[in-house]
Amino acid sequence: MPLILKTELADVASQINALLQADDYPNIIQPEYLKEAVRAYPCSGGKRLRPALLIWTCGLLEGCIEKTPHAAAAVEIYHNWTLVHDDIIDNDDIRRGELSTHCKLAEIGRNDYALDAGAAVKFGRDFAILAGDIQQGWAVNMLLKSVEDGVDPAVATALCRRLQELVNRELISGEAVDVQMPVMNRSHLSSAMVMEMIRQKTGVLLRFCAEAGAAIALELTDFFDPQIAALGRFAEAAGVAFQLRDDWLGVFGDFEKFGKTIGSDLTERKPTLLLMETWSRLSASKREELESLMGLPEYGAIEIERVRALMQDTGADKIVREMADFHVEESRNILLQFPDSKYRELLLDFTNYLVDRSL
Amino acid sequence: MPLILKTELADVASQINALLQADDYPNIIQPEYLKEAVRAYPCSGGKRLRPALLIWTCGLLEGCIEKTPHAAAAVEIYHNWTLVHDDIIDNDDIRRGELSTHCKLAEIGRNDYALDAGAAVKFGRDFAILAGDIQQGWAVNMLLKSVEDGVDPAVATALCRRLQELVNRELISGEAVDVQMPVMNRSHLSSAMVMEMIRQKTGVLLRFCAEAGAAIALELTDFFDPQIAALGRFAEAAGVAFQLRDDWLGVFGDFEKFGKTIGSDLTERKPTLLLMETWSRLSASKREELESLMGLPEYGAIEIERVRALMQDTGADKIVREMADFHVEESRNILLQFPDSKYRELLLDFTNYLVDRSL
Repeated sequence: MPLILKTELADVASQINALLQADDYPNIIQPEYLKEAVRAYPCSGGKRLRPALLIWTCGLLEGCIEKTPHAAAAVEIYHNWTLVHDDIIDNDDIRRGELSTHCKLAEIGRNDYALDAGAAVKFGRDFAILAGDIQQGWAVNMLLKSVEDGVDPAVATALCRRLQELVNRELISGEAVDVQMPVMNRSHLSSAMVMEMIRQKTGVLLRFCAEAGAAIALELTDFFDPQIAALGRFAEAAGVAFQLRDDWLGVFGDFEKFGKTIGSDLTERKPTLLLMETWSRLSASKREELESLMGLPEYGAIEIERVRALMQDTGADKIVREMADFHVEESRNILLQFPDSKYRELLLDFTNYLVDRSL
Repeated sequence: MPLILKTELADVASQINALLQADDYPNIIQPEYLKEAVRAYPCSGGKRLRPALLIWTCGLLEGCIEKTPHAAAAVEIYHNWTLVHDDIIDNDDIRRGELSTHCKLAEIGRNDYALDAGAAVKFGRDFAILAGDIQQGWAVNMLLKSVEDGVDPAVATALCRRLQELVNRELISGEAVDVQMPVMNRSHLSSAMVMEMIRQKTGVLLRFCAEAGAAIALELTDFFDPQIAALGRFAEAAGVAFQLRDDWLGVFGDFEKFGKTIGSDLTERKPTLLLMETWSRLSASKREELESLMGLPEYGAIEIERVRALMQDTGADKIVREMADFHVEESRNILLQFPDSKYRELLLDFTNYLVDRSL
């Protein structure tokens, strides 16, 4: 990661961390362990990429970035509530090296209330549902506090409506389709469906970050404004590129570097674009070979090499890399239409970082 | 129910039904069955008591009730999203005579994707979590559309912040405490805790309805305004009275009329105020008798009579009725401080109806 990106991201993170730590929204939540669960993910650090995107997009348009802290904190909380519910749905036990919310709450059920294993799992899940529900409200509230940063109430209202109309229903639709796809008959799936799912699940929140930064800078409430729309697309395309690259690294990444994430999509039979493009190009016998390599509990070098060969031989590997590159280019080209500035450099570095985390 | 209340409630219901049916928020939700699940509870009718409370409180203050439809629809959606998640948590299979959301979605998993029983339950639950999540966003969006009814953006922003700060975190805290209490040691519970849970779980959304109607009428953003605060308290007290009465009817209600809801709180060992007040007044041997009568799968006339006798002998029955009456009186007295009008009559009838649904 370039030094300037690293330094500026650290600045954003310390500002957002301070704001989230100090915010009194969770204070009156009962019981105490629910309050802790609500604060856990949002306050546990992380790179704060979404807040940075919002703030820097505001800066790119020479907006007053002093108006952005609450909006920036809001997108971070929003991202985190979706993780709490996703972790329940995906049965993910670990998040950022710690127990995920529903697992931590299940421990409370076991330890404080002596629940048996099944009851503790339900207890943890029930409270994690409620924790995410409160976090969604917290995010909305934080966004509306933008008014205290000097954002016009009409702009704050418009941002909050956009958060619902764009992010709430599309991001959650993306998550829903992601949950649905593995249980669908593969012949009913298409690459277009996968691309739309990625746009919704990963792209729209990033799009909102850029749109919000731009709307605050320009003091506009119309998201069809050409500059807002262009910057929204810049961020959405970067998000899609990131996800395609991430899925690609899940098979073609360096074993040393990415460790046990290599092959995990294959274990879950996740219909990534890489898999869809491979599948659609294989003969019946090769499909059987690929199928026999799917759903293994673990992938060693030999199994991964066989999967990689099928993906390379069909050209699917190249198609996915090209699709990612196409989105990165689109993203960069939009940025390059804006005047050169510190913020443009940061956003270009940010896009590069998203798609090549070895930087 | 008095005829005027019935007629005016029907008017509110038809207006709210039309608005919810026509609203395009759910339209782009994918997959189709998730869209249906999002629309199901809010569009399935019901008495629309919360919208009526909001609209009539606006009318009481001689506000322009043409400014209220979106806010009124919003509180109805808000109420319904909490039901979707509560039904998951409480394992409730039926809602308003139909399968609850998570059960209906489990059917999709079974029928459309041939999932086995366990996988279908998880599928239904996962999608119901997402449906409630989208509904929460829909409610916020609907509230912000008040601007289209002529509500000032500053008032709309203030209402939306209040929805989060009052309703989101307190209502959900109330639900959390309600889930927690049955697994707690009874000696750690208190009547005060039960009363606070009732205020949060049932009272605060009704409080918000009245506050929102008042804030729209008075064009104010300050919820400490004496009229707004008083009307908020009127609605909260009515809600608490309703819940106390409902819990009382769960034991002392007419078998013919309330059918299988009689005894269901006892089956679930739900720590109602009635139970807490009884328990705290019993000798050790009588506590054993009560304990032997708790958690039965069904309650016939003989079992119910034995429970009733314990509750009457301790005076708990009378205490709970008096507590309900006290809240009704508080509620009525606040209303009577406002000038007589059609809306005051409706709100008085409304309060009476809440606590005596035999009317």
